[in-house]
Amino acid sequence: MLRMTPEFRLIERVFSPATSHTLLAGGDDAALLVATPGTHLAISTDMLVEGVHFLPGTDAEALGHKVLAVNLSDLAAMGARPRWAFLALSLPALDEPWCERFMAGFLALAGRHGVDLAGGDTTRGPRNLCVTVVGECVPGAALRRDGARAGDDIHLSGVVGEAAAGLQSRRRLKAGDAADVEHCRRRLDRPEPRVMLGRALAGVAHAAIDVSDGLVADLGHICSRSGLGATIEWQRLPHSSALSALSEQERMAAVLAGGDDYELVFTAPVTARERLAAIAEGCGTPLTRIGRMEVGSGVSVLDGRGRALALDRGGFDHFA
Amino acid sequence: MLRMTPEFRLIERVFSPATSHTLLAGGDDAALLVATPGTHLAISTDMLVEGVHFLPGTDAEALGHKVLAVNLSDLAAMGARPRWAFLALSLPALDEPWCERFMAGFLALAGRHGVDLAGGDTTRGPRNLCVTVVGECVPGAALRRDGARAGDDIHLSGVVGEAAAGLQSRRRLKAGDAADVEHCRRRLDRPEPRVMLGRALAGVAHAAIDVSDGLVADLGHICSRSGLGATIEWQRLPHSSALSALSEQERMAAVLAGGDDYELVFTAPVTARERLAAIAEGCGTPLTRIGRMEVGSGVSVLDGRGRALALDRGGFDHFA
Repeated sequence: MLRMTPEFRLIERVFSPATSHTLLAGGDDAALLVATPGTHLAISTDMLVEGVHFLPGTDAEALGHKVLAVNLSDLAAMGARPRWAFLALSLPALDEPWCERFMAGFLALAGRHGVDLAGGDTTRGPRNLCVTVVGECVPGAALRRDGARAGDDIHLSGVVGEAAAGLQSRRRLKAGDAADVEHCRRRLDRPEPRVMLGRALAGVAHAAIDVSDGLVADLGHICSRSGLGATIEWQRLPHSSALSALSEQERMAAVLAGGDDYELVFTAPVTARERLAAIAEGCGTPLTRIGRMEVGSGVSVLDGRGRALALDRGGFDHFA
Repeated sequence: MLRMTPEFRLIERVFSPATSHTLLAGGDDAALLVATPGTHLAISTDMLVEGVHFLPGTDAEALGHKVLAVNLSDLAAMGARPRWAFLALSLPALDEPWCERFMAGFLALAGRHGVDLAGGDTTRGPRNLCVTVVGECVPGAALRRDGARAGDDIHLSGVVGEAAAGLQSRRRLKAGDAADVEHCRRRLDRPEPRVMLGRALAGVAHAAIDVSDGLVADLGHICSRSGLGATIEWQRLPHSSALSALSEQERMAAVLAGGDDYELVFTAPVTARERLAAIAEGCGTPLTRIGRMEVGSGVSVLDGRGRALALDRGGFDHFA
């Protein structure tokens, strides 16, 4: 684990100090951690590659934020409390200012969520960022994709589609209010994982996933893993005023198929509605009931007249 | 975590089935694991890059073995029992036969050590392999680098230098017995992590590290973290007959500065000698007492007449 490249020294300086739950972070063959007794572990790993997941020249501080954010979003979607992160970096050259900014973005988000940077590895090579996060779950309360039941309500946190619009705006300059464009780009570049909401939903929701590939695609994962179908109503979906410069067709594509928003879509029993209202208030996160799980398979989206929209995958592919 | 590339499906097929300690592996936002009550966690992550850590065209099955082996070696050096592995892959193109062979090498080693493949990520990009391993330690018995005490014996498992000779043999064809060359290349390509030995040493040894960068360099990490010096005797070091084609100078460089053998070098009190003899017998792993920890700093190597060898780093650099 220990490679004494200058980048590594830079990262080692910021490893978390010893505490009662992080006995040893960095500087040894492995980190030594003490999980909270009686919890289960939730662990996820994500790899981001330059030219695939982010463009060359992406701001280092935003990248440091995002690579951790997408991992924390995975833990949020499990209802887990994030505790530790591990960071492996391949970098083409020593660039101390880049590393400083990258780590600043990473550590600011880690600090806000009480996550210790417990270990890592650095090497020379094409730019590649791999983060592994470790969280803790209440046994039996984790939000799995396979836990949905027929009759469950489907809920969505916040609004989706803005990150896709942000990506759009970068590809071909869109007409539209500068503040809206800026807002959408920020959704794309600096997603805020729904950590607090995810933890609050543990033991309340039946199934959850974060919206990284697109609302229909990600809800589709819950459907297939739970052996059920889902119907959502276009009219119920929360609409973002920041998307007002888009055509109806573009807005639909962004909302239904745009990824990278890192909101949570989850299912819960009808009896949980009051409790969910309290959770939304407690977390300061709007929740919208957008549809229902049912016997069947796949995701249907109904328009204002109750007709199923043709979910032609090709129609959304320019956002994919 | 879930990306439905064809490679991912290939890996997902081989995720471990649900057990009492691996509740959920793959197919969700995170893996759900149950650590053994009362244990501490040891977690390490390592990233291997094509062209830096391995050559293009390296046999995929050997690579699958090695990327897990180097991580298991880190856990062995902590005295931890390996339990779970996470595998993130960036691959330049879909190559099913390559993936099949890679996973075969990875899973064969995982299976031998009771390690579950609990999650992962795949993406397109320059070839990059990032593995994170999770092990369990008996509280207070982990083998840290900072635990050595003045007066401790220094012990080494097996022999070192063979992997460096294997790398040598690949770079410029060496004269020498074909079987020796084959043996040394196997040490380089298919290292066997000292998992059983590491676990047996927990609570017995004071400090340990695996020999990945070279014996002197790695023992140097124990010295600096423990605030001590180390003296080892060249005459005591176990000599490999497979290195007989090397000159004295080359052999010294390979043994003292050659990395990639993944043996364990550790310190233990003099009173532990009998117990260590039993552990060596029980594990079927030769252990050699090669020197002693003392007040001071850095590593000294004494020749047969008790004179310190000049550890000119440059003299070993063609092995680095």
